[in-house]
Amino acid sequence: MRRLSVLALIPLIAAAPAAKPKTPSEIVAGAPRSDWREIAAEDLIVFELKDGKKVVMQLAPDFAPVHVANIRALAKGGWWDGSAIYRVQDNYVVQWGNNESEKPFPAGVVAKPPAEYHRARKGLLITPLGSPDAYAPSAGFARGWPVAYDPKGGTANLAHCYAMVGVGRGLSPDTGTGGELYTVIGHAPRHLDRNIAVVGRVVQGIDHMSSLPRGTEALGFYKERTSDVPIVGAKLASDLPAAERPRFEYLAGPSFAAYLHARKNRQDDFFIRPAGGADLCNINVPVRPAPAG
Amino acid sequence: MRRLSVLALIPLIAAAPAAKPKTPSEIVAGAPRSDWREIAAEDLIVFELKDGKKVVMQLAPDFAPVHVANIRALAKGGWWDGSAIYRVQDNYVVQWGNNESEKPFPAGVVAKPPAEYHRARKGLLITPLGSPDAYAPSAGFARGWPVAYDPKGGTANLAHCYAMVGVGRGLSPDTGTGGELYTVIGHAPRHLDRNIAVVGRVVQGIDHMSSLPRGTEALGFYKERTSDVPIVGAKLASDLPAAERPRFEYLAGPSFAAYLHARKNRQDDFFIRPAGGADLCNINVPVRPAPAG
Repeated sequence: MRRLSVLALIPLIAAAPAAKPKTPSEIVAGAPRSDWREIAAEDLIVFELKDGKKVVMQLAPDFAPVHVANIRALAKGGWWDGSAIYRVQDNYVVQWGNNESEKPFPAGVVAKPPAEYHRARKGLLITPLGSPDAYAPSAGFARGWPVAYDPKGGTANLAHCYAMVGVGRGLSPDTGTGGELYTVIGHAPRHLDRNIAVVGRVVQGIDHMSSLPRGTEALGFYKERTSDVPIVGAKLASDLPAAERPRFEYLAGPSFAAYLHARKNRQDDFFIRPAGGADLCNINVPVRPAPAG
Repeated sequence: MRRLSVLALIPLIAAAPAAKPKTPSEIVAGAPRSDWREIAAEDLIVFELKDGKKVVMQLAPDFAPVHVANIRALAKGGWWDGSAIYRVQDNYVVQWGNNESEKPFPAGVVAKPPAEYHRARKGLLITPLGSPDAYAPSAGFARGWPVAYDPKGGTANLAHCYAMVGVGRGLSPDTGTGGELYTVIGHAPRHLDRNIAVVGRVVQGIDHMSSLPRGTEALGFYKERTSDVPIVGAKLASDLPAAERPRFEYLAGPSFAAYLHARKNRQDDFFIRPAGGADLCNINVPVRPAPAG
């Protein structure tokens, strides 16, 4: 019962005979540069927590352009400076913003954005998941994002997978401005799909949020404001000096297709019965810091 | 953007006109005593962490009887006294036991249990989920547990949903003894289904595990043994004095069926587009402390 045996839960990359199919990790490690797509600097926003901890979020302007424009304007206007994480609900979400504050929105923020809960499927090249989905006729991946869609219909929407970020809102027709955001820290709450504007995902530092103490009030709100986790501020990567700018890229192309296939049909020595399928949110699209140069 | 608006993400129980369908919370709150099933005291094990924090786990002898008997023998023999949580992998699992220790197993522990990765479907009354599943031909609920099964086949297995507990093992044919356990703290890793003995779930205190700092080594192992989270010990509820014995019950019967329907078709004011379906692991079977008396 020593470490070796438990390590086998997910074997690390190891030298394997050529006849063996590659593991998901091997596919990611061996993917050519041409299969990695760099994320634009204006689509990355860095939230700085206390103690220098950073949470990097990728924005999804292709799916919620007005909300994303709002989030950019909020960052440029310093709206998150001195804000806080005030809600941590186990197996659900972490939420942050200027809770209970009358802080005015900076210029350029659209007070009532349209309901960007889905978009036209047209223009999206979707790699189908190839497994059934409980929430939509079909599911798959487009531009590095997990999406649900109707092959016969005209729309597609981002799925509420782990680490995806949505916009807190009140009752319809309110869609929220983007000032109060939440990220998923548990099993995908897909029932929120198409009911909320999903605007991106955390690509680095999700553990700074998911490991926070759970709030004891209803819905995981912290009881005392003194429990809030301070946010120093937020900046778009494109507004940071080049040397401080985070750069990330996601896996696409033939390597992503191979990764998807391998994740659905695990051939590692550990697996006795490969599933032959996978849930949309159990396929984490590989994202990594972009290599220098 | 004040608290009121974000609270609406999942509305609390509220007085609603009689014409409105009940929300999941209302169904749980209004369920008659006859729809709650008490969990046997010998099927509850209490892990005590440092600072008096407790994690209560429900065992699943109907699905993995030999592993469960081992876990009971390990508890009775004090095997977990002075053990530790030594692995916390974000969006995956927390694992505990006597890592890197040569601690001998107490009497009564079967060193090589059979591969209890599924059981006969016969004898299980299954409430079908009624939504497609990516990992099995069918999914549903039996005796309060999330299960996957083949309607034409003869087997059923527990599903790796959030807070479910499995037995760490090495490569096949090793099934693990039950000494090293893990619980799911992220999106359900259903690819582990039928590859590991699932032996129960955490019914109270999962937040004491899910909010732990993530390990920085591969697979979330803590780098230094000083980071391990001490486990004082573990006792079966049936071995505790009556006054200290935790009691829990889970929702079943018509109330569970109504809850399942409501979770799939959210009618709360917040929801614009009810999903009309749900993922197996997004239906958390309600479990609560049993009322006194």
